[in-house]
Amino acid sequence: MKRLGRHILAEFTGCDSELLNNLPAIESILKEAARQAEATIVDSVFHRYNPHGLSGVVVIAESHISIHTWPEYGYAAADVFTCGQQVDPWKACHYMKEKLACADMDAREINRGIPDSEDEILPHKPAGADHVADRVT
Amino acid sequence: MKRLGRHILAEFTGCDSELLNNLPAIESILKEAARQAEATIVDSVFHRYNPHGLSGVVVIAESHISIHTWPEYGYAAADVFTCGQQVDPWKACHYMKEKLACADMDAREINRGIPDSEDEILPHKPAGADHVADRVT
Repeated sequence: MKRLGRHILAEFTGCDSELLNNLPAIESILKEAARQAEATIVDSVFHRYNPHGLSGVVVIAESHISIHTWPEYGYAAADVFTCGQQVDPWKACHYMKEKLACADMDAREINRGIPDSEDEILPHKPAGADHVADRVT
Repeated sequence: MKRLGRHILAEFTGCDSELLNNLPAIESILKEAARQAEATIVDSVFHRYNPHGLSGVVVIAESHISIHTWPEYGYAAADVFTCGQQVDPWKACHYMKEKLACADMDAREINRGIPDSEDEILPHKPAGADHVADRVT
């Protein structure tokens, strides 16, 4: 595989249920997780559902971090997708585990890229390229 | 596992490179993919990078659909995360494959939920609950 990205899928269980319903707290945790991974935050969206649960996505120049919470089960599903060699998705993951007061994290890393190609690790963009934040919605 | 969601990770290769750099077209494809899956769109963010490549996320009431494109390789990484029994994430996936003029799709479905629990399939929210779109950023 020509690897272009690393994608961590994490199941957080035994979390603080009140926290999983606290939108400003979850937003703050996800954004700080991005910083911990040394990612560049581009934009974010957060939503609260009725009667409970949140969804949040932080778009980073290196891909995204998302979370969906089920406070009723003390459970959150997160994913951290990063590209490039500068960013460590596990730093974001472990930061979230700690801040969600999570009793157990079951996480797996999946390589993303072009299958059936010679093994190679490629950056997302030429080094030093800046992102252009064209917000359209 | 107590399954709460289905997460498809798809590698789209041999895509139309110009299309992968066309922000309005990709936005339209992702939103229509959500509708094809019978998901409810809550919000979305799309960004173009310099010199090329896009990131887009559509937050749906049932979780999210994301895409990150590498036009220089004719490649896009997508993920479709859904919960509940009403939404079929594969419909979104196949719709994207077709519209991206993708030569090959390598996709896998991963169950998301609470590990080490009795096998059970649970909805995200009580049936009929409406989402509350609290936009905070």
